[in-house]
Amino acid sequence: MSEPSYASLACPAPAITSGIIELAHGGGGRLTHRLIDDIFRPAFAVAPDDFTHDGAVLGLESDGQQLAFTTDSYVVRPLFFPGGDIGTLAINGTVNDLAMCGAEPKYLSVGLVIEEGLSIDLLRKVVESMRTAAVFAGVRIVTGDTKVVERGKGDGLYVNTSGVGLIRARSPVAPQRVEPGDAVILSGDIGRHGVAILGVREGLGFEMEITSDCAPLSAAVLALINAGIEIHCLRDLTRGGLATGLIEIADTAHIAIELDESVIPVSDSVRGACEILGLDPLYVANEGRFVALVPPEYAALALEHLQRFDQQATIIGHVEAGEGNPGVRLRTIGAVRALDMLSGEQLPRIC
Amino acid sequence: MSEPSYASLACPAPAITSGIIELAHGGGGRLTHRLIDDIFRPAFAVAPDDFTHDGAVLGLESDGQQLAFTTDSYVVRPLFFPGGDIGTLAINGTVNDLAMCGAEPKYLSVGLVIEEGLSIDLLRKVVESMRTAAVFAGVRIVTGDTKVVERGKGDGLYVNTSGVGLIRARSPVAPQRVEPGDAVILSGDIGRHGVAILGVREGLGFEMEITSDCAPLSAAVLALINAGIEIHCLRDLTRGGLATGLIEIADTAHIAIELDESVIPVSDSVRGACEILGLDPLYVANEGRFVALVPPEYAALALEHLQRFDQQATIIGHVEAGEGNPGVRLRTIGAVRALDMLSGEQLPRIC
Repeated sequence: MSEPSYASLACPAPAITSGIIELAHGGGGRLTHRLIDDIFRPAFAVAPDDFTHDGAVLGLESDGQQLAFTTDSYVVRPLFFPGGDIGTLAINGTVNDLAMCGAEPKYLSVGLVIEEGLSIDLLRKVVESMRTAAVFAGVRIVTGDTKVVERGKGDGLYVNTSGVGLIRARSPVAPQRVEPGDAVILSGDIGRHGVAILGVREGLGFEMEITSDCAPLSAAVLALINAGIEIHCLRDLTRGGLATGLIEIADTAHIAIELDESVIPVSDSVRGACEILGLDPLYVANEGRFVALVPPEYAALALEHLQRFDQQATIIGHVEAGEGNPGVRLRTIGAVRALDMLSGEQLPRIC
Repeated sequence: MSEPSYASLACPAPAITSGIIELAHGGGGRLTHRLIDDIFRPAFAVAPDDFTHDGAVLGLESDGQQLAFTTDSYVVRPLFFPGGDIGTLAINGTVNDLAMCGAEPKYLSVGLVIEEGLSIDLLRKVVESMRTAAVFAGVRIVTGDTKVVERGKGDGLYVNTSGVGLIRARSPVAPQRVEPGDAVILSGDIGRHGVAILGVREGLGFEMEITSDCAPLSAAVLALINAGIEIHCLRDLTRGGLATGLIEIADTAHIAIELDESVIPVSDSVRGACEILGLDPLYVANEGRFVALVPPEYAALALEHLQRFDQQATIIGHVEAGEGNPGVRLRTIGAVRALDMLSGEQLPRIC
């Protein structure tokens, strides 16, 4: 995902003053947010509202059409995994960041940083995956850049994709619009991408192969918009998973989100793998799942549309006023626990 | 520079079928063009005309306004050099790619791939350079992304910047529009960026410090447009330098360009350093220099405007019909020699 939140987040991690970059600074958790708040926001943010989206929403001077603009770098290892590869991921990831702005994705750029020694056959396969994914998502790759770095200065292939889309939502889609009463709808089962990556990386032989959920989300989002559904906020559940995505929204909007754990869809195979690996599926990365926060009167219609794309789409919770106690609460059997943002990530470098 | 030429180039290098990526594939010369022609173009190019710019020019459906869109990754080593750093370079480079489309640069994205262990103070300095460069160039950084890779899997910091601009030129700016008779105007002296980088990298103590020419070119381009000057083609002279930029234009436009070596401005210090290092300044990278190809009746006015930005701006040659003999010819004292595209680059990884 692009930085979802140059927006200020109430992270208790200490301010960054000096030191060195650790892996956790890239993990999408508290340390990433500190880096954003302490280094990037003061330097780049002119207006605080500029940085509350998965991508930027830009006005053009000549008419009312707004653009969405987003960027993402992909450093996934391994390059190929069940259900996709770094090429599929790079296209769908940027398509999804645009969709999360309420935009129709239109144009993509591809920037490659290739390590000397990479197999040209492998590069060709990745490029072919990009082509296929772009056609499937209805976007055009219109500009590119290639750099080659010396052996040992990269990891095979790093891909940056940036994207431009046309805003289709009739009102802004942003965390600040979330209101008490909003329904939280999850678009499908969670945890598959992260577990699929880890399975290959660690050479774990799961009984059933778990494939990544990597997919474009723009068709589902456009279906909601075209159905006239008022959308307050959209968020794809990449690094940090469902929990981190919702915590970011709650912190930005100063509201509370209450989830019902029993209805959150997690496949048996993912649940089993997570138990073996000691992972919480709520924090595991997805690459084809999102949440939509919509006013309660639109919840049933939104669910109906999302279930056409994935039968497992479910209303998993609702928004409450956050006074004094913002954040995300998970209702389990007989208890309610607060979900905290992780410091780093559970799985390094999976998106 | 973004790939200037997914456009077909008449490169005699053999087709890429398999093998591995070499450093020269990223050097901006023949091998880069082979990679583009053999791998990227067949996969990405829907219409052949899509890929003849430094960036893409995109139409919006709702009105006549066109956008420019470009991407570039920066893998420069060292990260700091006389006259700039990777942050300055990343902002100006993408600003310049947009300007070369005849666009006013507006919005930039920043994607960072940071190697674990990078000093946070260094990161802060680079980000501050980006901020300063963006303010100076009149662009806004509106979205970003950060990834951290393991120690030994990067080289401190790789930066991708993508950019969106509004097309201001009244007619297309593209190699295909170049015509016999056009004047070739160079915006200033050449070779400073490449020599500055190499000087630091190799620990060469030049008598006089040579500073990079890194600078935004958008103000100069907009001055030409606002003066009503018809512009056929613009090209910033990055990887591969003046020679490679003009060869690409000549190959795409199927024309010949004749240059007068004696008027091409090269500072004494750059000339001296190039002699010591065995480099041809015509092929050395610049980060704040461009050529404008304009109809002869506009040449004097264009020169007048460009000299307000840099007194060394000069008409260095003109375009001739290319029938049977397209390419770039350099008229030296008593001789004319053809300039060929290099296989790789003279200096690895300087932009």
